[in-house]
Amino acid sequence: MASSLTLSQALFSAAVSDRTSVAASPVSIPALPAHRSISSFRASRLVGVSSARRIASPVIRAQAVGTVEKTAETSLVDKSVNTIRFLAIDAVEKANSGHPGLPMGCAPMGHVLYDEVMRYNPKNPYWFNRDRFVLSAGHGCMLQYALLHLAGYDSVKEEDLKNFRQWGSKTPGHPENFETPGIEVTTGPLGQGIANAVGLALAEKHLAARYNKPGSEIVDHYTYAILGDGCQMEGIANEACSLAAHWGLGKLIAFYDDNHISIDGDTEIAFTENVDARFEGLGWHVIWVKNGNTGYDEIRAAIKEAKAVTDKPTLIKVTTTIGFGSPNKANSYSVHGSALGAKEVDATRKNLGWPHEPFHVPEDVKKHWSRHVPEGAALEAEWNTKFSEYEKKYAAEAAELKSIIEGTLPSDWEKALPRYTPETPGDATRNLSQANLNALAKVIPGLLGGSADLASSNMTLLKMFGDFQKDTPEERNIRFGVREHAMGAICNGIALHCPGLIPYCATFFVFTDYMRAAMRLSALSGAGVIYVMTHDSIGLGEDGPTHQPIEHLASFRAMPNILMLRPADGNETAGAYRVAVLNRKRPSVLALSRQKLPNLPGTSIEGVEKGGYIISDNSAGNKPDVILIGTGSELEIAAKAADVLRKGGKAVRVVSFVSWELFDDQSETYKESVLPAAVTARVSIEAGTTFGWQKIVGSAGKAIGIDTFGASAPAGKIYKEFGVTVEAVVAAAESLC
Amino acid sequence: MASSLTLSQALFSAAVSDRTSVAASPVSIPALPAHRSISSFRASRLVGVSSARRIASPVIRAQAVGTVEKTAETSLVDKSVNTIRFLAIDAVEKANSGHPGLPMGCAPMGHVLYDEVMRYNPKNPYWFNRDRFVLSAGHGCMLQYALLHLAGYDSVKEEDLKNFRQWGSKTPGHPENFETPGIEVTTGPLGQGIANAVGLALAEKHLAARYNKPGSEIVDHYTYAILGDGCQMEGIANEACSLAAHWGLGKLIAFYDDNHISIDGDTEIAFTENVDARFEGLGWHVIWVKNGNTGYDEIRAAIKEAKAVTDKPTLIKVTTTIGFGSPNKANSYSVHGSALGAKEVDATRKNLGWPHEPFHVPEDVKKHWSRHVPEGAALEAEWNTKFSEYEKKYAAEAAELKSIIEGTLPSDWEKALPRYTPETPGDATRNLSQANLNALAKVIPGLLGGSADLASSNMTLLKMFGDFQKDTPEERNIRFGVREHAMGAICNGIALHCPGLIPYCATFFVFTDYMRAAMRLSALSGAGVIYVMTHDSIGLGEDGPTHQPIEHLASFRAMPNILMLRPADGNETAGAYRVAVLNRKRPSVLALSRQKLPNLPGTSIEGVEKGGYIISDNSAGNKPDVILIGTGSELEIAAKAADVLRKGGKAVRVVSFVSWELFDDQSETYKESVLPAAVTARVSIEAGTTFGWQKIVGSAGKAIGIDTFGASAPAGKIYKEFGVTVEAVVAAAESLC
Repeated sequence: MASSLTLSQALFSAAVSDRTSVAASPVSIPALPAHRSISSFRASRLVGVSSARRIASPVIRAQAVGTVEKTAETSLVDKSVNTIRFLAIDAVEKANSGHPGLPMGCAPMGHVLYDEVMRYNPKNPYWFNRDRFVLSAGHGCMLQYALLHLAGYDSVKEEDLKNFRQWGSKTPGHPENFETPGIEVTTGPLGQGIANAVGLALAEKHLAARYNKPGSEIVDHYTYAILGDGCQMEGIANEACSLAAHWGLGKLIAFYDDNHISIDGDTEIAFTENVDARFEGLGWHVIWVKNGNTGYDEIRAAIKEAKAVTDKPTLIKVTTTIGFGSPNKANSYSVHGSALGAKEVDATRKNLGWPHEPFHVPEDVKKHWSRHVPEGAALEAEWNTKFSEYEKKYAAEAAELKSIIEGTLPSDWEKALPRYTPETPGDATRNLSQANLNALAKVIPGLLGGSADLASSNMTLLKMFGDFQKDTPEERNIRFGVREHAMGAICNGIALHCPGLIPYCATFFVFTDYMRAAMRLSALSGAGVIYVMTHDSIGLGEDGPTHQPIEHLASFRAMPNILMLRPADGNETAGAYRVAVLNRKRPSVLALSRQKLPNLPGTSIEGVEKGGYIISDNSAGNKPDVILIGTGSELEIAAKAADVLRKGGKAVRVVSFVSWELFDDQSETYKESVLPAAVTARVSIEAGTTFGWQKIVGSAGKAIGIDTFGASAPAGKIYKEFGVTVEAVVAAAESLC
Repeated sequence: MASSLTLSQALFSAAVSDRTSVAASPVSIPALPAHRSISSFRASRLVGVSSARRIASPVIRAQAVGTVEKTAETSLVDKSVNTIRFLAIDAVEKANSGHPGLPMGCAPMGHVLYDEVMRYNPKNPYWFNRDRFVLSAGHGCMLQYALLHLAGYDSVKEEDLKNFRQWGSKTPGHPENFETPGIEVTTGPLGQGIANAVGLALAEKHLAARYNKPGSEIVDHYTYAILGDGCQMEGIANEACSLAAHWGLGKLIAFYDDNHISIDGDTEIAFTENVDARFEGLGWHVIWVKNGNTGYDEIRAAIKEAKAVTDKPTLIKVTTTIGFGSPNKANSYSVHGSALGAKEVDATRKNLGWPHEPFHVPEDVKKHWSRHVPEGAALEAEWNTKFSEYEKKYAAEAAELKSIIEGTLPSDWEKALPRYTPETPGDATRNLSQANLNALAKVIPGLLGGSADLASSNMTLLKMFGDFQKDTPEERNIRFGVREHAMGAICNGIALHCPGLIPYCATFFVFTDYMRAAMRLSALSGAGVIYVMTHDSIGLGEDGPTHQPIEHLASFRAMPNILMLRPADGNETAGAYRVAVLNRKRPSVLALSRQKLPNLPGTSIEGVEKGGYIISDNSAGNKPDVILIGTGSELEIAAKAADVLRKGGKAVRVVSFVSWELFDDQSETYKESVLPAAVTARVSIEAGTTFGWQKIVGSAGKAIGIDTFGASAPAGKIYKEFGVTVEAVVAAAESLC
């Protein structure tokens, strides 16, 4: 069932496979040049690059040739691998906090990846065409910090390693892209990283399909990930990996650190499924490296095989020993998440023959790795040359791709936003959203996305494009299936691939509950995903309380660095999209109605940017009798209540409170001009929980909303039964003024 | 690879399999009596019941014999199946809202299950030993309503079918256990139901192992589920199904409605994995029924085979046509979630030869189904007799099981709660939580649970019990692996199995983001799960912002019908458990510290029940100068700040605000006695978002908290850097009074 290595590799692996063996040395075999046994199209691209490296610069060529020879010297590889292990051990020991087990077990695959396989430029971690690496098992971050350090990234100097997990350091407790250049995405919450990697690989496949030309493969990189048993157990990983195979992401290569240990002990207690069989069922190519502890050649051969399979993602199951090298703690949960302790560190030093001081990098290891700085610069320079040639031949495509790489928007993109007048027939904001998406997709080349199997309900199809699929990766409608959680995390990967990709994704607002962990990571990692969340209240009607959001608006208003927007009509929907597109490091959640809403007098695109603004007012001197505050579908109710109250002689201001976060960002003067402190007669109305509204309406005000679950019935009936009505607003206002 | 039917069944299936055929009739074969070809232990139990039925009552015997004969008359089965189809069609049509497609395709399996296989008592939907059925594809609820109606449940009368999806009806838009007796769990959000079913099957296996005696199998039922393509795509389903196989839940039989259609169209666009292979990888027994539209015998044979496999759960993949019978809409997404429309309803009536009025149940169908009322009563009576005999032989076990079945607690259970004094050395509330769990498990027989691979961090192990595992199902520590979402949904299933089972589950508080959809269903469906959520703030330190909850307290305070509790020390942790145990229809979330906290003077178990209460006060006449309000680990800071302020001559009240929901439930008099309206000088402190605190501190008060993401560093340092300190509280208080 499980896929096998090539015959010769199988013989090697038989010779060296011993999961628990500490001192076993692999059979030393000179590595074959990469192009020997690879014949497929994508692999030939790889060969192209290798030869290009050798031709491009004599300095690089010498080093590159040297590399192949040196890499074959197993003793130096052993030394490099042990350097990685001890940097992790020492940093965790100094912090007295962290996870040494994974870096000790995964150091060999880490070494092979960063030293022999991956293409990157340490002095420009943002070089567009770099290979991407994601440590989905983020707790093992010292592995990646050690690798970035050896490779010459400025973000991880020796002092950074010594400051592991300390305030203000570049080496936090889990990998954070916003702290440490060289880290692609923020991981730690398990399963997210592999889904991010699917997004990165999707982005590459998409851009390659759109912009590569025969002989000008300007977009061409791999995406690598390491995931552990924990990631494998998480549902999000299964969702994402099902999609990765469906999309045929052949340049996604995931290493499964199969160490049989999780925090609670042996995985036998909770995880006895056949992972290989599951992945084959999902449609992946599966390879098993039996000796991940010292089997460098096995790892190399597996990567070679993985690259040769171009129509499927590959899972390389690498059996390792957690905490490899620790005589008393290896292969046990005790090495997973705690410092080894001085005594065991000493024992491990003895066991692995490592006489050095903490944080020591031996000179020959340093020298060996030092080539990555010039090589990386050469790779980027070579690509720049290639891009210049591409630019000459394909000016329009080059300009467009450049805007995606750099994240620049066309100067007149905002003109595409539709505008409405009160005379424009009313519509559901989900439909207005689709108008915006379609208008924007025409002018923003990096806008792409889709829905979790609700495209026709969320109204997210881009009509001028087809589906992003295995054989049509140039298209821009992504079909996520019913996989909300992976959808969010995949979009994080797309957004963080390069600044000009603007992914949007959609489901019913209530099902943000399925993807909240991914959305939080959008916010934390600065991934400007646009969340198109329709059916945003009891207004969805008959589907009932399982489908009706109540607490969701509040729950996102409470989340840092995310923009919760609830537009009321056409202009506000356009305004919400303007905000969402411009906020590239702050994700936006758009709560949109299922039901039809009128275009209200006074709403505007510009108003939305203020978060809260006056849409109508018959008062003078900033002293209304009462302020009515509404959002989304209830702004209409506030406006109608104002009409009633004004007929009764009241001076009434109506405020649209479309985004609390944006309002918070305004000056005190502006805020006072909308919500003057002296006016305490305030009534809010929103078809959701009143939780949090006291901040806006104040102790003297009244918040109208729904603090219980909803119900199954036609929408109008539910609104009436829950008292979310014009009459309720009028009564509340009259009680206050 | 896929499992196969028996040879004879394979021949039948070859004769009848045609997914898209509308009019095909299955080969009519007399059904074999159930005991003919079944030899395993569990199957023999089934046979035992069948014979018992025949012996118990002459009336029942005659009907039971009749049933076997009648069931063999395919024409009547066809008629019954079409009755189900048209009840669904007619109800959706009348409501002009709903999902006819699934009921039309799944009517045959529904008929076989409810009419031929399942054991239940329509007049007592809560009979303990009933078979459980879960419609994981909850949007198809008209299938279940039609079946409950035919079977004679009082909850679904003809008028209820006619009120489908209307305000106040017993037939809401998705199955809701709290609205409709006969519905076991609340489904609709996809994937939840199959995970609930895993919980129900776990509960059965656990109770059977604890209470059954040789010859007295007092706990003995199956759990059936129907899940669709949507459920299959959701990660939670994979998590739950991995566990189901790991635990060897042989009495869980899941039907996968393989109709190749989801809302966005053919599943080919997003779901091309090999589900059979994945389930075999997970460790399930897999059977494929090729003709689910009319292949009654195939369905019967599959169930027979599934029952014979006792060490694994079984997935019966039933290939059906969505909207079977509709000449123009079958096998298309258009029949998934909308009424057929009058014209297509007529065409379907013609096509299926159904001349009847809407909602008509033919007399012979009615008569055929009518036997379930007396049979169900007999089943229950027979079980009651069995239980009486069991009670005589095993008095202690019977009493304990009875308390689990009825949900009664031992009269003195509360005495088990530990109590503390300020002299008791301080401890982390996660450790205090473990003391409570262990104390309670000794006196509450239905308490069981565990962690998502963080048992040693969440401190959830019950020391006197072993692990609930495949071969030790009588034990009470459940190992969920890193599967938070399934964990929550499985606990919902356990809680809703019978009132006396009290499941608890645990992870880091921040990872409630992974399981929020399940937690919301705990709240909505009245499943009193205890969520043990540790590492509840920046106080966890070095793991950093991915692991530090900020908005989570607010996000649960905003959720209806859930109790968010944040105890500050030993007494409050015990108080939180008291509340959690007593609230059987309202789940509790306990936010617990990683770090050590002192036992504070003034805290109490009784205080917790009020939600907010005074722990110290040097004011008189209910007129303190300032009120300091803290929760959990920050109550200590409030108490220390009070000391400082009192030394400066202030009259200071310190309030522990352990649960906002419980405080809300108190009388206005009580609330005024704690937070007098006249005292507007109020300062709150909590190491989380300030969002929502304005309700408590009022417009004039100050809320100290953290409105950004956290950081990776030692906990003390983070508290200081974020200004969550005694000094900050003192300064805020001094600015107010």
